[in-house]
Amino acid sequence: MMKRKIILDCDPGHDDAIAMLMAYAHPAIDLLGITIVAGNQTLNNTVRNGLSVAQLLDMGTKIYAGMPQPLVREQLVAGNVHGKTGIDGPVFDELKRTAEQEKGVQFIIDTLMKSEGEITLVPTGPLTNIAVAMKMEPLIIPKIKEIVLMGGAYGNGNFTPSSEFNILADPEAAYVVFKSKVPIVMMGLDVTNQTICTPEIIERMEAVGNTAGKLFGDLLRFTLKTQFEEFGLEAGPIHDATTIAYLINPELFEVRDMYVEVDINRGPCYGRTVCDESNVLKRTPNAKVGVGINNELFFDLVEECIRMYKA
Amino acid sequence: MMKRKIILDCDPGHDDAIAMLMAYAHPAIDLLGITIVAGNQTLNNTVRNGLSVAQLLDMGTKIYAGMPQPLVREQLVAGNVHGKTGIDGPVFDELKRTAEQEKGVQFIIDTLMKSEGEITLVPTGPLTNIAVAMKMEPLIIPKIKEIVLMGGAYGNGNFTPSSEFNILADPEAAYVVFKSKVPIVMMGLDVTNQTICTPEIIERMEAVGNTAGKLFGDLLRFTLKTQFEEFGLEAGPIHDATTIAYLINPELFEVRDMYVEVDINRGPCYGRTVCDESNVLKRTPNAKVGVGINNELFFDLVEECIRMYKA
Amino acid sequence: MMKRKIILDCDPGHDDAIAMLMAYAHPAIDLLGITIVAGNQTLNNTVRNGLSVAQLLDMGTKIYAGMPQPLVREQLVAGNVHGKTGIDGPVFDELKRTAEQEKGVQFIIDTLMKSEGEITLVPTGPLTNIAVAMKMEPLIIPKIKEIVLMGGAYGNGNFTPSSEFNILADPEAAYVVFKSKVPIVMMGLDVTNQTICTPEIIERMEAVGNTAGKLFGDLLRFTLKTQFEEFGLEAGPIHDATTIAYLINPELFEVRDMYVEVDINRGPCYGRTVCDESNVLKRTPNAKVGVGINNELFFDLVEECIRMYKA
Amino acid sequence: MMKRKIILDCDPGHDDAIAMLMAYAHPAIDLLGITIVAGNQTLNNTVRNGLSVAQLLDMGTKIYAGMPQPLVREQLVAGNVHGKTGIDGPVFDELKRTAEQEKGVQFIIDTLMKSEGEITLVPTGPLTNIAVAMKMEPLIIPKIKEIVLMGGAYGNGNFTPSSEFNILADPEAAYVVFKSKVPIVMMGLDVTNQTICTPEIIERMEAVGNTAGKLFGDLLRFTLKTQFEEFGLEAGPIHDATTIAYLINPELFEVRDMYVEVDINRGPCYGRTVCDESNVLKRTPNAKVGVGINNELFFDLVEECIRMYKA
Repeated sequence: MMKRKIILDCDPGHDDAIAMLMAYAHPAIDLLGITIVAGNQTLNNTVRNGLSVAQLLDMGTKIYAGMPQPLVREQLVAGNVHGKTGIDGPVFDELKRTAEQEKGVQFIIDTLMKSEGEITLVPTGPLTNIAVAMKMEPLIIPKIKEIVLMGGAYGNGNFTPSSEFNILADPEAAYVVFKSKVPIVMMGLDVTNQTICTPEIIERMEAVGNTAGKLFGDLLRFTLKTQFEEFGLEAGPIHDATTIAYLINPELFEVRDMYVEVDINRGPCYGRTVCDESNVLKRTPNAKVGVGINNELFFDLVEECIRMYKA
Repeated sequence: MMKRKIILDCDPGHDDAIAMLMAYAHPAIDLLGITIVAGNQTLNNTVRNGLSVAQLLDMGTKIYAGMPQPLVREQLVAGNVHGKTGIDGPVFDELKRTAEQEKGVQFIIDTLMKSEGEITLVPTGPLTNIAVAMKMEPLIIPKIKEIVLMGGAYGNGNFTPSSEFNILADPEAAYVVFKSKVPIVMMGLDVTNQTICTPEIIERMEAVGNTAGKLFGDLLRFTLKTQFEEFGLEAGPIHDATTIAYLINPELFEVRDMYVEVDINRGPCYGRTVCDESNVLKRTPNAKVGVGINNELFFDLVEECIRMYKA
Repeated sequence: MMKRKIILDCDPGHDDAIAMLMAYAHPAIDLLGITIVAGNQTLNNTVRNGLSVAQLLDMGTKIYAGMPQPLVREQLVAGNVHGKTGIDGPVFDELKRTAEQEKGVQFIIDTLMKSEGEITLVPTGPLTNIAVAMKMEPLIIPKIKEIVLMGGAYGNGNFTPSSEFNILADPEAAYVVFKSKVPIVMMGLDVTNQTICTPEIIERMEAVGNTAGKLFGDLLRFTLKTQFEEFGLEAGPIHDATTIAYLINPELFEVRDMYVEVDINRGPCYGRTVCDESNVLKRTPNAKVGVGINNELFFDLVEECIRMYKA
Repeated sequence: MMKRKIILDCDPGHDDAIAMLMAYAHPAIDLLGITIVAGNQTLNNTVRNGLSVAQLLDMGTKIYAGMPQPLVREQLVAGNVHGKTGIDGPVFDELKRTAEQEKGVQFIIDTLMKSEGEITLVPTGPLTNIAVAMKMEPLIIPKIKEIVLMGGAYGNGNFTPSSEFNILADPEAAYVVFKSKVPIVMMGLDVTNQTICTPEIIERMEAVGNTAGKLFGDLLRFTLKTQFEEFGLEAGPIHDATTIAYLINPELFEVRDMYVEVDINRGPCYGRTVCDESNVLKRTPNAKVGVGINNELFFDLVEECIRMYKA
């Protein structure tokens, strides 16, 4: 089997950590590097969280710090969901790993420029790193195989009635990415909100008995509470993990071709991914948008990834 | 039983005609007058269509011509759905009825000013007449019992990915109405798209054997074709009739309190009814938004209304 | 000499009162009626002020109350400039005159519909009445000879850096009027700010010794103070009077053909009259924009009008 | 005398070349490096032009290629003004110089991070490089002594009625810079359009008899034609040179403190520098805006700089 070469671009974040866990472990994925962006928390926090997760799971992948600020708008973080650190819940050992000297945007550009169209970008946070890389070196654009991202919604948003956090945290960056003509797979709230992690699922993963299972439990037990308080959800979804699951096994998902545009007007739809679900505009689709998920197989896959960690 | 006093404000239009038919016939409704607005077609067309329907059904209600143009934007009509006349399909006799001298906006203002809070406005077209009346005489605002309207959506639009025709045809008017603090019931596409009028239903109504049943058939047979061609729907919904059905029997519907705002930024969400379905903004709701309908009882009610016509 | 038939559409207001005074007195003008709009103050205030001025000067012209609210935006008044009543300064006798039963918008429509292209509209307040009339009866549009208005600026605004009060108080109405294709003469702040009414000029007008001269003094002495406090101007300009002066003697003014569009985006330029002074867009001009005034002859004309009042 | 340490950030461009010429020669300026941005032409063109000018004048300063694309909007170049190459007119020798390996944005960040508040940025093109540097490393913001830029206008624009080219070519970048709280000196069209380079001035500079004087002549003779054709100007202004002149001798200019905000709404004022010239908003000023220039002394200074070149 050909491994799928990816750069994971994330803002850890509870569900980002699960995406990291899965991407590193699964043999279908060749994780070339992890770039970090501000989002769920400030960049200092998300970088530290990414390093902590990598250290705990003994991940060999290099980690690169990216953009600390959105392209145009003032910064927005999701302290209400992810707590003060951005990854409240687990207690990590003292941090010994450090991020690379090279910056995240530069790593994305350099890696793509040396590639031949085989690399997929997997953003699970605001799209700032990707947009800046595209603007700084437009020659990378035709080299990107695909962008498989978590963000947006064709239904309701979660931070405003219209908008999902990752897109709302940098609408102009998302606007750039969706206009780039790179093939996009968008896992929006419509799908990711279905990946509810109930206490039963948490227990099942913890029962694996290794560090990865314990990390899963520590992360998701925290979000049980915040997701209920903030969104009235029964438990926390693991939004970001859908991107990795899709790359491992796209058949877990139903996706539909749509034309998607990001609203950057500063009104009530600022940051909305406007998805032409019914094709009323008759434009060429620029994204495959997730509309369904086989949740049972999805969680089987999560467990499979957890079991791949030996200790 | 107290009759519900209403002014029907419409742009006939196939489904507007069914709303007229029901509102005039049913004893739970006291139809004070019908005001016409440009929308599905130009005002000349919608007025003529309203008069034709009223003449055919021998309706005693007076008809008033309203606004021929939206508040701010350039005019938009729905020729693709309702044909060149705005009500293609039925063949009407030569028109003998005429609209009143008094204009629609003036009729709304005068009627409300003489009232004591017992009158409900029922707009099934663009909200131009209502908005102009509110701006011209703000004293009517506290006198309106409720506005039960067809328009908008919290899901997809039908004329753009974001927007439903009635709102898109005059977003600024809708913005004014939703900001007015009058209690609103919004029947959006989320509900109205469910009222699909299949050939079986058409036959059932025609089988009543009177003029009203034949009119229903002539109208809905036309939309069978256009709805399929334009929206891929199996058959035509009768959007506007939901407003009257709700007034006769609200229990046919599930509604939910939401804060609704209309986007008037001229981007991809121009004309969207932004509905805070999950209450992420924590604002006081200003509308009851239709989320479900008992379609079987709804069509029973439509038939009941048709049967009330003697000839 | 052919008299110029006009409808004066104003929001009195100190400078509106001077426009009324001049329009009624001068033989070059045939003042068909005065319509009032909310603007400098609420409609109750502006109607009362218009009636008070008309009563004081014994003007035979009928006065019609128009729109109390702007088309779309929330109401904005200019209490900082015109005081609590909208015309602080003069003390008026108890009011005996009343406004007509017919509403301002209806009067504009009816008068224009009976005309043959010889009537000029002269708005010196927000353009709400004109825009609603155009939208309610588009057939009036080709019948309007010209619109000679006070409003806007190609330079700085006075209520925001971009926008002048009359336009900012109803940008959507102004948008409609400037898009209407009616020939427009725009007297913006660029010209009207030059009509500074110094104490010397006030004394000169008062020295005429009649009621009109005294009214001029009472009005302008008040604005001496507010204009200095609000705008740092040495004394008060009489913006609105430029429209009437232009109609009497256009040679007092230098005007230039420009394409003008009103910005209705709700950012920092909301309500700006975007004037293509250098014709960079190469569009057909839709307005003659005032760029210069012969101030000496202008005040001579004001005095001439004041002297026409006998008592 | 303390030399003023600057980074010149430009998009050569005829007038950029004069700014380079002056900044390199004059002893009051310590030119740390030149960063290039897309603007008057694509980045390939502007980098080549910058290198050509530097080679011709034997400038020791290093040149760094920056951003090839604006932050969010589609690219806009000024081929109408600067010709196909971006610097039509002079004939340059075959290019031997090359740009540095390090990219422009990185050079700005690195140089500022090693500094202690003594460096001034001098952008004479779109503000893309500066905005990306600020977003990529916000710690540079408090280290910037001042930004002295050419761009914007409080009066008319030159590419739209509202907007000047440098700002219009990347409004979002300008928005970021004007919000950054760094002290800004803005040389807008209001001042720079006064620096008209007549045939007499061109002859005077050519009469110096050196390479720099000849370059000046070759550049400005080309713009004689385009400025007349595009903007109806008698001859070409040398906009960008005002920034360097201000740094050498601020007394040549009259500047006024204003609050300046960039309009990023995509309407008719997209890219306008909204300057609160009359302080109607009562906000703390964030820029000194050029309002006047001593043109005679300005051209004396230009000649002085030209004479500093020996060959």
